[in-house]
Amino acid sequence: MLLHLSTWPEIRDALERSKTIVIPIGSTEQHGPTGLLGTDWLCPEIIAHEAHQSGADILVGPTINVGMAQHHLGFPGSLTLRPSTFMAVIGDWVRSLTLHGWNRIYFLNGHGGNIPTIQAAFSELYAEASLAGRPASFALKLGNWWELPAVAEVIARHYSTGHGSHATPSEIAITQWAYPHAVKRADYTPRIAGAGPIRDAADFRLRHPDGRMGSDPGQATPEIGGLLVQTAVQGLLAAIAAFGRE
Amino acid sequence: MLLHLSTWPEIRDALERSKTIVIPIGSTEQHGPTGLLGTDWLCPEIIAHEAHQSGADILVGPTINVGMAQHHLGFPGSLTLRPSTFMAVIGDWVRSLTLHGWNRIYFLNGHGGNIPTIQAAFSELYAEASLAGRPASFALKLGNWWELPAVAEVIARHYSTGHGSHATPSEIAITQWAYPHAVKRADYTPRIAGAGPIRDAADFRLRHPDGRMGSDPGQATPEIGGLLVQTAVQGLLAAIAAFGRE
Amino acid sequence: MLLHLSTWPEIRDALERSKTIVIPIGSTEQHGPTGLLGTDWLCPEIIAHEAHQSGADILVGPTINVGMAQHHLGFPGSLTLRPSTFMAVIGDWVRSLTLHGWNRIYFLNGHGGNIPTIQAAFSELYAEASLAGRPASFALKLGNWWELPAVAEVIARHYSTGHGSHATPSEIAITQWAYPHAVKRADYTPRIAGAGPIRDAADFRLRHPDGRMGSDPGQATPEIGGLLVQTAVQGLLAAIAAFGRE
Amino acid sequence: MLLHLSTWPEIRDALERSKTIVIPIGSTEQHGPTGLLGTDWLCPEIIAHEAHQSGADILVGPTINVGMAQHHLGFPGSLTLRPSTFMAVIGDWVRSLTLHGWNRIYFLNGHGGNIPTIQAAFSELYAEASLAGRPASFALKLGNWWELPAVAEVIARHYSTGHGSHATPSEIAITQWAYPHAVKRADYTPRIAGAGPIRDAADFRLRHPDGRMGSDPGQATPEIGGLLVQTAVQGLLAAIAAFGRE
Amino acid sequence: MLLHLSTWPEIRDALERSKTIVIPIGSTEQHGPTGLLGTDWLCPEIIAHEAHQSGADILVGPTINVGMAQHHLGFPGSLTLRPSTFMAVIGDWVRSLTLHGWNRIYFLNGHGGNIPTIQAAFSELYAEASLAGRPASFALKLGNWWELPAVAEVIARHYSTGHGSHATPSEIAITQWAYPHAVKRADYTPRIAGAGPIRDAADFRLRHPDGRMGSDPGQATPEIGGLLVQTAVQGLLAAIAAFGRE
Amino acid sequence: MLLHLSTWPEIRDALERSKTIVIPIGSTEQHGPTGLLGTDWLCPEIIAHEAHQSGADILVGPTINVGMAQHHLGFPGSLTLRPSTFMAVIGDWVRSLTLHGWNRIYFLNGHGGNIPTIQAAFSELYAEASLAGRPASFALKLGNWWELPAVAEVIARHYSTGHGSHATPSEIAITQWAYPHAVKRADYTPRIAGAGPIRDAADFRLRHPDGRMGSDPGQATPEIGGLLVQTAVQGLLAAIAAFGRE
Repeated sequence: MLLHLSTWPEIRDALERSKTIVIPIGSTEQHGPTGLLGTDWLCPEIIAHEAHQSGADILVGPTINVGMAQHHLGFPGSLTLRPSTFMAVIGDWVRSLTLHGWNRIYFLNGHGGNIPTIQAAFSELYAEASLAGRPASFALKLGNWWELPAVAEVIARHYSTGHGSHATPSEIAITQWAYPHAVKRADYTPRIAGAGPIRDAADFRLRHPDGRMGSDPGQATPEIGGLLVQTAVQGLLAAIAAFGRE
Repeated sequence: MLLHLSTWPEIRDALERSKTIVIPIGSTEQHGPTGLLGTDWLCPEIIAHEAHQSGADILVGPTINVGMAQHHLGFPGSLTLRPSTFMAVIGDWVRSLTLHGWNRIYFLNGHGGNIPTIQAAFSELYAEASLAGRPASFALKLGNWWELPAVAEVIARHYSTGHGSHATPSEIAITQWAYPHAVKRADYTPRIAGAGPIRDAADFRLRHPDGRMGSDPGQATPEIGGLLVQTAVQGLLAAIAAFGRE
Repeated sequence: MLLHLSTWPEIRDALERSKTIVIPIGSTEQHGPTGLLGTDWLCPEIIAHEAHQSGADILVGPTINVGMAQHHLGFPGSLTLRPSTFMAVIGDWVRSLTLHGWNRIYFLNGHGGNIPTIQAAFSELYAEASLAGRPASFALKLGNWWELPAVAEVIARHYSTGHGSHATPSEIAITQWAYPHAVKRADYTPRIAGAGPIRDAADFRLRHPDGRMGSDPGQATPEIGGLLVQTAVQGLLAAIAAFGRE
Repeated sequence: MLLHLSTWPEIRDALERSKTIVIPIGSTEQHGPTGLLGTDWLCPEIIAHEAHQSGADILVGPTINVGMAQHHLGFPGSLTLRPSTFMAVIGDWVRSLTLHGWNRIYFLNGHGGNIPTIQAAFSELYAEASLAGRPASFALKLGNWWELPAVAEVIARHYSTGHGSHATPSEIAITQWAYPHAVKRADYTPRIAGAGPIRDAADFRLRHPDGRMGSDPGQATPEIGGLLVQTAVQGLLAAIAAFGRE
Repeated sequence: MLLHLSTWPEIRDALERSKTIVIPIGSTEQHGPTGLLGTDWLCPEIIAHEAHQSGADILVGPTINVGMAQHHLGFPGSLTLRPSTFMAVIGDWVRSLTLHGWNRIYFLNGHGGNIPTIQAAFSELYAEASLAGRPASFALKLGNWWELPAVAEVIARHYSTGHGSHATPSEIAITQWAYPHAVKRADYTPRIAGAGPIRDAADFRLRHPDGRMGSDPGQATPEIGGLLVQTAVQGLLAAIAAFGRE
Repeated sequence: MLLHLSTWPEIRDALERSKTIVIPIGSTEQHGPTGLLGTDWLCPEIIAHEAHQSGADILVGPTINVGMAQHHLGFPGSLTLRPSTFMAVIGDWVRSLTLHGWNRIYFLNGHGGNIPTIQAAFSELYAEASLAGRPASFALKLGNWWELPAVAEVIARHYSTGHGSHATPSEIAITQWAYPHAVKRADYTPRIAGAGPIRDAADFRLRHPDGRMGSDPGQATPEIGGLLVQTAVQGLLAAIAAFGRE
């Protein structure tokens, strides 16, 4: 089910069947000359919605579409929440969700830069219980789509070089598969972008003039995108099942 | 243009043409027995995206899909940000957007309960400049889709009774037009729901047992939804143009 | 009773009789060439204290005399709380008051610019209960003195033109009635000030060079002020009674 | 001048003459069986307004009438700001005042429990400049009315025993002088109340069952109150003059 | 016992014997031409650890080594927490400690500039209980080492002139005794430094060019340092015992 | 140099030579039946101070001795900062340090649980510059001592089994080497502790009854501790040099 296309009585009934929910979470940020600004929230949304479409009995919540992307602010269109704001947002979502009874909340993440803040947000939430001397009533999990079971193998097989860590061919391929009318083309120079530490936005733009980090997005194709999505859907369902047993 | 389906060079170029951006903003909350939980963010998103589809040269940012809905938390699936969190979110979006050069930010809103917090967030942002003794570099505007030029007339014509203020036939009609596969049916008793003050979630549920406020959503049809969308699109374009002249 | 001129045993006894309290709330901000900086907190204080003086059995708390007035900071003497600070203040007042047992807290407001932040503060307070899954133990109400029963009629009768929305003849008349030694005179040019959107302080001062918004304060007289106060006192008592029945 | 009874052009002109302003600051809290809940903000307001009445050319701002009184919450009618909120309030007042050009801000305090938080608020404000590596443009001073020049001598002369530290005969005498219609009487048992450490509200009420700390308020008279006010007025003017030379 | 050199089972057993813990708290800030930057946290740590070494059955927690020192930021090496941050830190320490069962938490302080913020932090913590209408489960106490029983007498005997209030010979003597390899020498001009109000860092540096306030640190010797430590150890044990009886 | 044993003129001179500083950062938390509560801050402090002792020209600041350890609160003596507090602390340290001119701040970390929050704090700090559209004046780096060059090899060689992830033999060995009088012994059952996800404190204690995670601390010896320290010292110097070239 997609929560946003359901009514409250439907959700009330769904809670009878399962206390697990998937929240796609990502970022709106530059993805190089051809990557969409929405790439990092589109990917987990595409995968989670496809899991729903494929007939799996999972519940998918709305997508968190802006995350922690301060280092990308040197490129037009990038949006960021400060980590403190992002933590407050995750906190209020979790408080709302657990109030209704969900006790396994799985954040399907599309942006590496979100990871520390999401984990810090989890600790902030757990600390409420821990400092009060009571058990938390819920478990939180962060899953990055590119680390779902079998996905790394697909990436390695198709992108043995030039995958990189930002504006990767795999994430761009996924958006190409889902949004074929929004496929963009450009010449990449150099073909594989450089790497380096991540600091503030001005530093990032100097080190990464076109926005890519270590990647050659020219290798992206809708076909590989589709393959990645199908693989990730299976991986997601496996990960959710494992989450329930932990 | 849709920002999330654009690249940063495309946005860089768009900023040469216009410094105005539209941000759909809403809420994920119960909308009675048949309204979708996403109604309040779907409506402004539908209208803004349709404006883009219709060929208008407007730029639409990502949608803020969770707002201030604490009073709906008595119904499963409703999510809320506390006002303080919501203000921080709006603050970081505006800071990111103005950094890139947008100086007219139009929030197209779908949820009455968001209004005070959005306005307080605007004041918080303006206060940074005012307390520093310098002019703000941007103007912010809140537009509720149901108050766009000519929309009220359409509503009055079709829903002279039982429009109410929550889970209204007009907002449900819009989602029916856009998501025909997600149209839900139920018997409403009473046909027109009661009204009352809005306080906390427990009080709200007692006063409004099925979630509606003063409305008869049974009057919603996809056809009227489509008419509302077309009217709102024209109203939005007029409102943006007026904003640019203020 | 006036809380600040009472002892704690007197308040303890008063709480046996009623759980309702009135808090005058306003702002310290410019009110044009002749309006007092305290106008917006003096008006609700004058009305509430006069209700007490007139023999009504109401309890009036201290006055909140600085509110949200960032847009007036371009004029000397204006003070503001940022919305986030203002919300924290209202929160602590309400927490203190409800701890003692008051469960109907009526904020009698004198400043339009306060409205969104006060309402956001109410939501923030209600959200504590709503997110905890318990009913709130209190009800909060915002009443603007100019919207009290019958007051609008008096205003319309005496100020059919040039009432405007800031530095209005009605609010100035009230302070003239209560503080006859502080009546100020000036020539107004133009007689009726212009209107416009409200943004930051620099923008406000440019649009409203002498601080007025749409008003002709020259129409203010102590006599009309007294009439407004008497009308508002009756309106306040009616509003409080209605609040108790909601 | 009293700021709240002045217009903005009057304040603009006053700023030409002096950059010093006095802000009365206190608390709304229980003051034993006979002390007024407003005692701690009434005393500095009475003294500052009397200084103005006496013809001195000083500017007095609005009164901050709720401070840090968490330990008094066990007694009905006491209000508190948490220290964090109180610091935010003082911060916004100071930011507003210094924006207009005041650079010597003298807080005339009436509540011992406010002292640490006011000083912490000063440090928070100074830290903005210090951490930015620039000089602060303003000086802040906290003056307790009972420590103004010569006041301690008057207190010692009239209240050699039973002055105590809360609900003191001197502060009650001042309110008796200013509000003769609000003088309350009660039997005090014991005549001089006990002392002890200050912790939370429940602990305070246990240690100080009627709210007094070490005091015998039965010694208060309007006459001594008047004497204290006159002495404090002179002390205030001397303190302000010294502040300007520091 | 020293908490940081203990295991959790040892601490579990210690909690059976006593619910009191000592937390050394200070600051990292300039201490004139010869004082160590760590002076203010070293002194309470030296005293508390020496009390443990001397065989007393006390439990000493880790040292808080950065406090409120914004006014010293004009001198290289000084670190500060803003008061709001410092309060949050003290809050989390106290919440952690009381969770384990400690109910008497004694902060042995080495920095005068910390006092208001520590006291405000105590009030913030107590206010949680007070606003919730329940008793606090703990008592907090601030003890400055120079005010421990008998310490003032030792100071007065040895440093009748030139003790001052910052970079005092007594605090420097204590660090000389404990860190003999880190004794520094310099010529002081003037021999006794000037005094003055404390504001922001730039103002402080102007008033106190070498960092001292009213002191002649040249009088410090390791011998007097050792005497001060021994006296303070006895004073600390007496203070803790008294704390337990309050 | 050790900052806390230096004077401000010494630090002023040191800043002429280098703009890099090392801050040991850790946690106070249970480390199983025999691990010291201070293990996680002692290890980086030991390594950094030993680097200084060995004659390297590095500057070491005070140690941050409490970090993010909410999951350990089920064991007596564990202390935590909430992530939001921890971020504020790191922020104020960095603001103080960069004010003096340090522009390469290396946090030598001893606690895995700190990593997300430290990284989020870095992003929060960088975001100030990024959102202001200016370059940051500093670079921040997080180095975990167990990931310093060559350290992993030493660990792998000596602890091929039972190293685990908490209360590891390597960290305990380091404290044994540095604090030989505080070496503790216990029987471990099972010899190698179990592993599992980290959530709140109650969950953690259930999964890890004696506090260890996957480790056999019985393998710790002071000799291996000394070897680890020497290796880490060299690794730290190499890491700092590399940081300067990045």
